[in-house]
Amino acid sequence: MAQKPSIPKGSRDFSPVEMARRNYIFNTIREVFALFGYRQIETPAMENLSTLMGKYGEEGDKLLFKILNSGEWLRGLEGKDPGEGSARLTSAVSEKGLRYDLTVPFARFVVQHRGEIQFPFRRFQIQPVWRADRPQKGRYREFYQCDADVVGSGSLYNEVELLQMIDEVFARLRVNVAIKLNNRKVLAGIAEVIGAPDKIVDITVAIDKLDKIGMEAVNAELAERGLSAESIAALAPILAIGGTTQERLAQLGELLKDSETGSLGVRELEFVCARSSELGLRAPLDLDVSLARGLNYYTGCIIEVKALDVEIGSITGGGRYDNLTGVFGMPGVSGVGISFGADRIYDVLNALDLYPDSTQRATTVMFTNFGDKEAAASLRLIKELRGAGVAAELYPDAAKMKKQMAYANALSIPYVAIIGESELQAGTVTLKNMESGEQQTLPASAVVEALKK
Amino acid sequence: MAQKPSIPKGSRDFSPVEMARRNYIFNTIREVFALFGYRQIETPAMENLSTLMGKYGEEGDKLLFKILNSGEWLRGLEGKDPGEGSARLTSAVSEKGLRYDLTVPFARFVVQHRGEIQFPFRRFQIQPVWRADRPQKGRYREFYQCDADVVGSGSLYNEVELLQMIDEVFARLRVNVAIKLNNRKVLAGIAEVIGAPDKIVDITVAIDKLDKIGMEAVNAELAERGLSAESIAALAPILAIGGTTQERLAQLGELLKDSETGSLGVRELEFVCARSSELGLRAPLDLDVSLARGLNYYTGCIIEVKALDVEIGSITGGGRYDNLTGVFGMPGVSGVGISFGADRIYDVLNALDLYPDSTQRATTVMFTNFGDKEAAASLRLIKELRGAGVAAELYPDAAKMKKQMAYANALSIPYVAIIGESELQAGTVTLKNMESGEQQTLPASAVVEALKK
Repeated sequence: MAQKPSIPKGSRDFSPVEMARRNYIFNTIREVFALFGYRQIETPAMENLSTLMGKYGEEGDKLLFKILNSGEWLRGLEGKDPGEGSARLTSAVSEKGLRYDLTVPFARFVVQHRGEIQFPFRRFQIQPVWRADRPQKGRYREFYQCDADVVGSGSLYNEVELLQMIDEVFARLRVNVAIKLNNRKVLAGIAEVIGAPDKIVDITVAIDKLDKIGMEAVNAELAERGLSAESIAALAPILAIGGTTQERLAQLGELLKDSETGSLGVRELEFVCARSSELGLRAPLDLDVSLARGLNYYTGCIIEVKALDVEIGSITGGGRYDNLTGVFGMPGVSGVGISFGADRIYDVLNALDLYPDSTQRATTVMFTNFGDKEAAASLRLIKELRGAGVAAELYPDAAKMKKQMAYANALSIPYVAIIGESELQAGTVTLKNMESGEQQTLPASAVVEALKK
Repeated sequence: MAQKPSIPKGSRDFSPVEMARRNYIFNTIREVFALFGYRQIETPAMENLSTLMGKYGEEGDKLLFKILNSGEWLRGLEGKDPGEGSARLTSAVSEKGLRYDLTVPFARFVVQHRGEIQFPFRRFQIQPVWRADRPQKGRYREFYQCDADVVGSGSLYNEVELLQMIDEVFARLRVNVAIKLNNRKVLAGIAEVIGAPDKIVDITVAIDKLDKIGMEAVNAELAERGLSAESIAALAPILAIGGTTQERLAQLGELLKDSETGSLGVRELEFVCARSSELGLRAPLDLDVSLARGLNYYTGCIIEVKALDVEIGSITGGGRYDNLTGVFGMPGVSGVGISFGADRIYDVLNALDLYPDSTQRATTVMFTNFGDKEAAASLRLIKELRGAGVAAELYPDAAKMKKQMAYANALSIPYVAIIGESELQAGTVTLKNMESGEQQTLPASAVVEALKK
């Protein structure tokens, strides 16, 4: 009868130790968001499929988890030809899906609640998303996103602020990062000045691989994608710009001076870099003209963050988009946002062991249990300790001392308080420091003070 | 083309103001859980249907949200007879479902991770659950549960501690509550001594309505359910016990003295009530022999909490169960737990307007924006403020002053800081208290100190 319990592939349980570590990351991000005036929202796990479908491309539609209609779902298939195939018949048995990211639900939220929202709307959202991707190392079917966006303001100060937030979060987490910056208008300008304005997608897909495959292979791919030899030759000096960010911006400005869009992109980058450096970011800000994430989506600045001490790819990304809400009937709302990849950041902190000691433990002191009389005295003291904000617990059973101590040890509880018969008579408590092994006997009235710091 | 955006019925969006209020509740519960040494876990939203099905009764199986298999789900139906009906064919197209509560996933977790867990295991879990119930006022298809359980200990100190936790949470939330207490063994004892030991379910279902329908109607229902006139007559004095909790326990002990199980139940209640009252609960503890929640599940103490100042039903409940994990192949693990109904508690706090002022606002100070020079000076000061832990923001656009002030007002931002041309020249800031309307001009260097408290 008994089932061997398991969970769906690609999903995870989080133990108390893992939760403490994850909460440390989430709390850090949440605190920084709040410090910058961002305000939290939540949206439901399930959205109507009409909200989700068609927003993530054909591949994305397939990766949505769909909810089987409740009740007589088979009726939806009556009169349908199974030959139409699973994909086409899905809408006959399912009208809801699990959210795939936080961006589309946010766009839906903004349009649905437009009358109640104060614009510019600085919102943050920390919730899980679900994707029916093939699970593999570091890729899960349920994972958290931590998004901050400002909508209803085209000001570049928002970009500056988002860079400060990224910098602050990783400084607090003690992760060394580099922030890469680009601008979609620069990419459009590049395509324009090399005489291939309609090839912007091909160009960006190819040059995005520059780091990995090198210039020669990129050029071969560009040729394969139909770029002329002249265009490829014209692209080379643009990819070869070097020096400091300021120098690179100057070179880029010169190279793109004949493209209005490209020049505007360069000026935007100049503004964002200048303001950010005046304010003093701790992380280096790298201008990278090959950066292109989510091209069909971003319209201005593009941001990507890499950890310097662990090979793991992008751990945060974002950018400006100009028509997030158009598909829901509210055109012309500009926005800019970033998304922290909490699960990858978790992997980075695990790899570098960057958790503060406080995330390793929960309870400060465990009281041993020798029976009802001793337990009653312990509970009175535990109540006082909790009143003073000290997490305390009684071992619930009068088990063997060895078992009780092993429990405290396994949970990394730093202090064990012992009220046995002699302590009970003397009105004292024996307090054992579990790390040093030191033991001292105190008046019961002194225990709260001793553990309060 | 544009869709009119909406969300599935029974689900909710939470605005920043609603989130601040909900976080106040969740944080309060979380802090108390931690103070008592409970440790957090999380489980995935999706569980295998084999884990969930059959655990909540036939009705519960229907109320599970099921995930349509990814890809070629239609293949599962090949060779199946649609005449079998939707319920029977569900397993052909779905193998996962959304969690329906936190208890079954917790049981699965305990069994799956038994080798890594230190018992007694005090765990808490705060996550949403999903039920395909008919939505109605106060009943949602997605809602949060906040559970704390101890497994692997039969000690009644756990019950005492859970009562203290309930008391502490509602004291902190400033909600007046009464805690009702009963014991499944007492219910079994009652059925025994009135000569109807096999009628325990009928008896409890009927007497559970005592408050609502009165003794006469209860007796009629008992007769309908096959109880003899003698049994009904014997039940009357048990339901009529009165006086203080101690007096009622004494009467109950006398009435149930011929039932071994019943007497054990009374002794358990005596222990829990005595220890709790020694430690001093703020909420009244009411012995209520008609309390029966989740009868098929609980085996010892049964706990239920009602708000005294709002009519809303139970806002927290729990009890002891002796075979939570048996269905997953790990018999004999006793546990006891409570579940805070966060959404109902939210309704109670809304009804009584019990939120502290701090939940009404996020940002402490907004800086107005008059253009780049002024904004640059503002951003430097904002950086200092954030460094001192003061949430601050710059209005991102150099919009009309009226619009900027309206924004600060609508978001209940308590202070607006103005750096215009004259302030810029003088190195000062004009600080406006938005509540009192008072305005003062300070040296820029004094702003952090002024807003830090």
